[in-house]
Amino acid sequence: MTFTQPWIDAGLIARSLAEDIGRGDITTQACVPEEATARATVVARQSGIIAGLDIAVEVWRQVDATLSLTLLRNDGATISVGDAVLQVDGSARAILTGERVALNFLGRLSGIATLTARCVAATEGTEARIIDTRKTTPGLRALEKYAVRMGGGANHRFGLDDGILIKDNHIAASGSITAAVTRAKQSAHHLLRMEVECDTMAQVHEALIMGVHAILLDNMPPDQMRQAVTLIRAHHPETIIEASGGIGTDPVKIRAVAATGVDLISIGALTNTATTVDLGLDFA
Amino acid sequence: MTFTQPWIDAGLIARSLAEDIGRGDITTQACVPEEATARATVVARQSGIIAGLDIAVEVWRQVDATLSLTLLRNDGATISVGDAVLQVDGSARAILTGERVALNFLGRLSGIATLTARCVAATEGTEARIIDTRKTTPGLRALEKYAVRMGGGANHRFGLDDGILIKDNHIAASGSITAAVTRAKQSAHHLLRMEVECDTMAQVHEALIMGVHAILLDNMPPDQMRQAVTLIRAHHPETIIEASGGIGTDPVKIRAVAATGVDLISIGALTNTATTVDLGLDFA
Amino acid sequence: MTFTQPWIDAGLIARSLAEDIGRGDITTQACVPEEATARATVVARQSGIIAGLDIAVEVWRQVDATLSLTLLRNDGATISVGDAVLQVDGSARAILTGERVALNFLGRLSGIATLTARCVAATEGTEARIIDTRKTTPGLRALEKYAVRMGGGANHRFGLDDGILIKDNHIAASGSITAAVTRAKQSAHHLLRMEVECDTMAQVHEALIMGVHAILLDNMPPDQMRQAVTLIRAHHPETIIEASGGIGTDPVKIRAVAATGVDLISIGALTNTATTVDLGLDFA
Amino acid sequence: MTFTQPWIDAGLIARSLAEDIGRGDITTQACVPEEATARATVVARQSGIIAGLDIAVEVWRQVDATLSLTLLRNDGATISVGDAVLQVDGSARAILTGERVALNFLGRLSGIATLTARCVAATEGTEARIIDTRKTTPGLRALEKYAVRMGGGANHRFGLDDGILIKDNHIAASGSITAAVTRAKQSAHHLLRMEVECDTMAQVHEALIMGVHAILLDNMPPDQMRQAVTLIRAHHPETIIEASGGIGTDPVKIRAVAATGVDLISIGALTNTATTVDLGLDFA
Amino acid sequence: MTFTQPWIDAGLIARSLAEDIGRGDITTQACVPEEATARATVVARQSGIIAGLDIAVEVWRQVDATLSLTLLRNDGATISVGDAVLQVDGSARAILTGERVALNFLGRLSGIATLTARCVAATEGTEARIIDTRKTTPGLRALEKYAVRMGGGANHRFGLDDGILIKDNHIAASGSITAAVTRAKQSAHHLLRMEVECDTMAQVHEALIMGVHAILLDNMPPDQMRQAVTLIRAHHPETIIEASGGIGTDPVKIRAVAATGVDLISIGALTNTATTVDLGLDFA
Amino acid sequence: MTFTQPWIDAGLIARSLAEDIGRGDITTQACVPEEATARATVVARQSGIIAGLDIAVEVWRQVDATLSLTLLRNDGATISVGDAVLQVDGSARAILTGERVALNFLGRLSGIATLTARCVAATEGTEARIIDTRKTTPGLRALEKYAVRMGGGANHRFGLDDGILIKDNHIAASGSITAAVTRAKQSAHHLLRMEVECDTMAQVHEALIMGVHAILLDNMPPDQMRQAVTLIRAHHPETIIEASGGIGTDPVKIRAVAATGVDLISIGALTNTATTVDLGLDFA
Repeated sequence: MTFTQPWIDAGLIARSLAEDIGRGDITTQACVPEEATARATVVARQSGIIAGLDIAVEVWRQVDATLSLTLLRNDGATISVGDAVLQVDGSARAILTGERVALNFLGRLSGIATLTARCVAATEGTEARIIDTRKTTPGLRALEKYAVRMGGGANHRFGLDDGILIKDNHIAASGSITAAVTRAKQSAHHLLRMEVECDTMAQVHEALIMGVHAILLDNMPPDQMRQAVTLIRAHHPETIIEASGGIGTDPVKIRAVAATGVDLISIGALTNTATTVDLGLDFA
Repeated sequence: MTFTQPWIDAGLIARSLAEDIGRGDITTQACVPEEATARATVVARQSGIIAGLDIAVEVWRQVDATLSLTLLRNDGATISVGDAVLQVDGSARAILTGERVALNFLGRLSGIATLTARCVAATEGTEARIIDTRKTTPGLRALEKYAVRMGGGANHRFGLDDGILIKDNHIAASGSITAAVTRAKQSAHHLLRMEVECDTMAQVHEALIMGVHAILLDNMPPDQMRQAVTLIRAHHPETIIEASGGIGTDPVKIRAVAATGVDLISIGALTNTATTVDLGLDFA
Repeated sequence: MTFTQPWIDAGLIARSLAEDIGRGDITTQACVPEEATARATVVARQSGIIAGLDIAVEVWRQVDATLSLTLLRNDGATISVGDAVLQVDGSARAILTGERVALNFLGRLSGIATLTARCVAATEGTEARIIDTRKTTPGLRALEKYAVRMGGGANHRFGLDDGILIKDNHIAASGSITAAVTRAKQSAHHLLRMEVECDTMAQVHEALIMGVHAILLDNMPPDQMRQAVTLIRAHHPETIIEASGGIGTDPVKIRAVAATGVDLISIGALTNTATTVDLGLDFA
Repeated sequence: MTFTQPWIDAGLIARSLAEDIGRGDITTQACVPEEATARATVVARQSGIIAGLDIAVEVWRQVDATLSLTLLRNDGATISVGDAVLQVDGSARAILTGERVALNFLGRLSGIATLTARCVAATEGTEARIIDTRKTTPGLRALEKYAVRMGGGANHRFGLDDGILIKDNHIAASGSITAAVTRAKQSAHHLLRMEVECDTMAQVHEALIMGVHAILLDNMPPDQMRQAVTLIRAHHPETIIEASGGIGTDPVKIRAVAATGVDLISIGALTNTATTVDLGLDFA
Repeated sequence: MTFTQPWIDAGLIARSLAEDIGRGDITTQACVPEEATARATVVARQSGIIAGLDIAVEVWRQVDATLSLTLLRNDGATISVGDAVLQVDGSARAILTGERVALNFLGRLSGIATLTARCVAATEGTEARIIDTRKTTPGLRALEKYAVRMGGGANHRFGLDDGILIKDNHIAASGSITAAVTRAKQSAHHLLRMEVECDTMAQVHEALIMGVHAILLDNMPPDQMRQAVTLIRAHHPETIIEASGGIGTDPVKIRAVAATGVDLISIGALTNTATTVDLGLDFA
Repeated sequence: MTFTQPWIDAGLIARSLAEDIGRGDITTQACVPEEATARATVVARQSGIIAGLDIAVEVWRQVDATLSLTLLRNDGATISVGDAVLQVDGSARAILTGERVALNFLGRLSGIATLTARCVAATEGTEARIIDTRKTTPGLRALEKYAVRMGGGANHRFGLDDGILIKDNHIAASGSITAAVTRAKQSAHHLLRMEVECDTMAQVHEALIMGVHAILLDNMPPDQMRQAVTLIRAHHPETIIEASGGIGTDPVKIRAVAATGVDLISIGALTNTATTVDLGLDFA
């Protein structure tokens, strides 16, 4: 991890390279002379939003610290087929050995950024923000949440420790929203807000009475959601309202939810249904 | 890593749990009594092929070694909406704290298995096998290749060290297929085969003359591919033929490629376009 | 780390044992027969609040998994000179080899719990809670914050990532409280509250206007602090008020601050001036 | 660890930063522009002996390798309120993100150096040296023993493996000092000396007969200690004499022990009762 | 590991230095002034083949990155008594602290290269190549296999995962060579060859029928081996033939085996009976 | 590391298994049914002293914790061809997968124990003890020094930190033995002895005057060595005398050195010229 860019995890990159290279890139070491140099560029073969260029840079740096790496675009930029986004100069062996890992990161993160941007576009003209969830690829959460930001989305909490979100099973285990919130207030530090998942209007009422800071409306049909928003806004205008549950990435559905007046729309599909953006490495 | 099931990487699971839990699952610790026990089942909310049950088991075991875990299905089984696949009994806190990581693994791996199975079905009646590529999620390759197997597919090499695959850039760096193969023969150990990527019939000829063990027909139109297969089969029946390049997961396209008589069809999209299979955790 | 008790960090314990034992406890291995068994008890040589018994248990378990460990007290209990708190039965070698590390943890954590309890007692009859800071021993934060809880105190945020606390240098870098808070609102996720450090009444005014959730009154004399509390309570009764800055552990000073009506009194000295509670290991 | 300055453990510093920064310093990243630069100085708010400047330098280097760090004092120097000891120039974000960890190390180590210096001063005019013990903070032993040296003290052994110290429990397990020493002589390598803890004059006699290299006089009243020293000096002038046990940091008590003629006075309180020296970070 | 020279494992070197240096090179730190510089050369005290110079360079670099290191020979060169192979300039302390680990690596690897070269010389005029086995020192396999290459030998597979070698116990567990090969064909990826260990002519027949790519003739007397080679060459000229089993490093025995016409002679003794080549460090 | 048997390093074993198994034992997984069980015994194919049985046990335990392992001999025992030393019962796959690593450890350690025993036998009737040096295999020092003990030898210091040994280069850097010893006395803790390497009688004189605890007679011809011993014994009977330098493992040479009356004979060849003891795994 670099402490000022915590989404760039040097350990993850090293493990990913080790996973691919194992005991050595035997084809490249056999076929490419040690002293050969080359210039290669990462080029888009699909359009989308690019994300992960700094990771790709770090991948090639770990393979060979003498490579020269030049960003031709910045993360968050819109790219079209044929756009060059990153140039690599130096040892031909090192460029080839790092290629697949660099592209695997770039393709996946750009895929998330691209899908996020499409969802964000669907909220245009509303106040709703698109946010992610904890439905991320194991080991890649910080990167995938970074990709969501690059696509114009915002982040939900990063883990189970930086925000209190009381879900149905917590409520069941506590006995009631009232009991759960009471317990949570005693135990959390004062800089953490409390959010409660509500499936019914009765639960919304109970949560509001308990003074929670945010309410997650889970799997509500648009009409009920609109009704809940109206109720909350009327009595507790400061309460943050999140819509969640099976919304997916269909722009029409997102727009309908955004129109209910919620503040946040959280979509697990941003990270668990995104597909890769195709990028290739071209040698000059 | 368990050495007898090397796709179950205890370190990866521990890092994934640490990523999600951070300094502690504060909601669960606040709301759920320490002594509360529960029975929960992982249930399919989409149909598909299940993969990753052993990983899910290991996730919960790392959270709490006293949990009792019962497989209700085995990896590779076809599941329908509502099917229960895994039962967890024990500390309610531990079940909740491990839930998301377990489901994130299961959903992703089942997604790959499901997509693979669909591609494999498209080859029915042909000799072609569906295989994966190195276009996997960084850090998850062993698991994703395991999921491909669970979906009925086979694996390509696992990394740059357990097979020689001479691609266009290697050929360019060596000067010719002949030069590249000659070098590779000198350097690889005798239990590794050699495969060469060919874009043209001329390259196929050159590769055959050099006595390579496998030929990858890259991005060839079906007609040319069929012609190449005929040529290879006529003179070097032992040579393995792999089709690759932009085939994707469209059954019609896959079937067309399979019909050319190739042995292997490698599809990057198995792993980099698979989306999650939705699974949930239900408490009894 | 055990994921359900995240303050017990197995890696930290292993490193601490390795630090003390190095290439082996040569005195014990020379002098104590391998098969000798013993019963030993950890006994208080000073009074105070005990904290860290689970850590001590884990220390000895890592030295020898066959040791039998029996808690005679629970963390948070008041102990007097001569009280036995933990009993260890099994290999005499293992008991001796783990002794120092176990006692070093126990003594330090009990010291913090004891000092915290003394500070908490000084707030009796007020609403103020004693909380810790980030002035902890590098590597031991989770444990030291746990010890504060065992002493009856509460915790401030655990790190730079689970709460927004805008301090003087952040304000200076942003230009103003207004600018800093505006920026922070755009970037933090919705489950994190925002606190601003204020040195003057003017800053308190500005922070209130910006709608921050908590205000830290830094190094204010009691009269000014009381005045600030009155102002905040009058207009923004939901705002949390924290007093900080050079309060130390003098009960008279703490009581004076508590009497101003603040919600929280954060004291770095809880963790960086606590001295060990003397505990010894007696063999039966 | 840097192998030529083994007390600077890069892994410990990295873990300490990760502990504090977690998933990122969200306040600083929100409020401080990425391109902002600053000059800051670490300034003493209490007088004492400074120790740990190289650690602080390494902390900030790990946060951002481009920071420029200038020592204004050297470890071991006496500092007064207001003295600047270290200057940091560069990225304002990086300076702020590393601040707390750097100060936590510096404050703790300077506290130990300061307390040690006070104890050393109490021995002035005698031959006695002040030494530390193994009662150090888990994980920080090398650093804390370094701080003792910076305060003018010397070190006892670093762990259970670089010196033989036969204590009461070892003697009990062996049956007698004679038996314990006999066993230890057979097992230790020839570059390790042997020390025996003696509570009584009879034990001192027995240890001398066995030819041990050092005798630890444990918890003896000054008169008895003086008598023991006289006896040892008379017959075995080469034997090193250590006084230990509840001596603490009271100068009067230390001086009384030193006056008995012992060579070494070991004081656990150097490391387990030292409190932080207050240091702050001032921006220019 | 450096990814382009995977036999140079930075982690192994760091652990080896930590193993030797522990809590610090106390003699050097006491006796050698911090600012002293020196020039030292690694000099051969025995003749042989040098191997491991890059490792030695990396050892000293890890001790002190400011040392200047100059290769005077390259790995694989023949050295005579008195030949200087590596020059180190810089901090005298760092040179001394790294000396033993650097020499331990160099001596061991040169020993293997030297022994390999002697075995290779015995095959002169034949087609047989000398290869290694998996009988390597735990933790040093990549290095030891590199040393074999430097001595003119070639490598067998690197581990259990990059080649299929069906041995007697596998055959026993499967029931027959036919069954074992059938199973292996279904499970291995297409770039891995299959080799079968044969003790008898009947097994050779069965293996040939199954179309394996390589046959290991285990512990066969020269006559039988020659007969087996004749049979294989007659019917399956492409099959690779490896001789193994108790051949050792006696040139006469090796030459006899080579004369049978096998392709490969694998010798465990290359790595598990090689003794060190004596090298010393001379200061100018 | 297990803290009570520090030579058994669980991390080293895990890395060694990972080195051999990589991404999986593909032959065994293909050919041996998952449910097959077997009984296998480790059997000596050469005579010698067995060492490393506990390591072999730990290797197989890491592969599969359900294996049952029974020691048939203890480390240090003399073994003859055909002797069974360890029995393994359980999963046939696990037994085969762990075989090579277990045997590689056992063979190497037994080789060292066997060679040591031969050297120790050469000292029979003298007071001299055979000890090892720091010329060990990188990463295996604790194990190799353990093997020396199993062969009846003793250990020299374990690293650069648990004993002061002033060698020629230290003397050169300090100016003289007197200067070097003076410095070392000031810096080492009181439980470490000081040894000086002496090449000449003049150096022996100087070292004795400085009161060092041990003298290493380096590369002295027997006559001069005898003369040095006589001198030292006459004036400083407590000084330990070590002979070193090119003694090797020739019994005649060792006996000649032992006869000079030295206390210790250190032999690098114990660890860097030992060859493996051949052991095999037989299935019942």
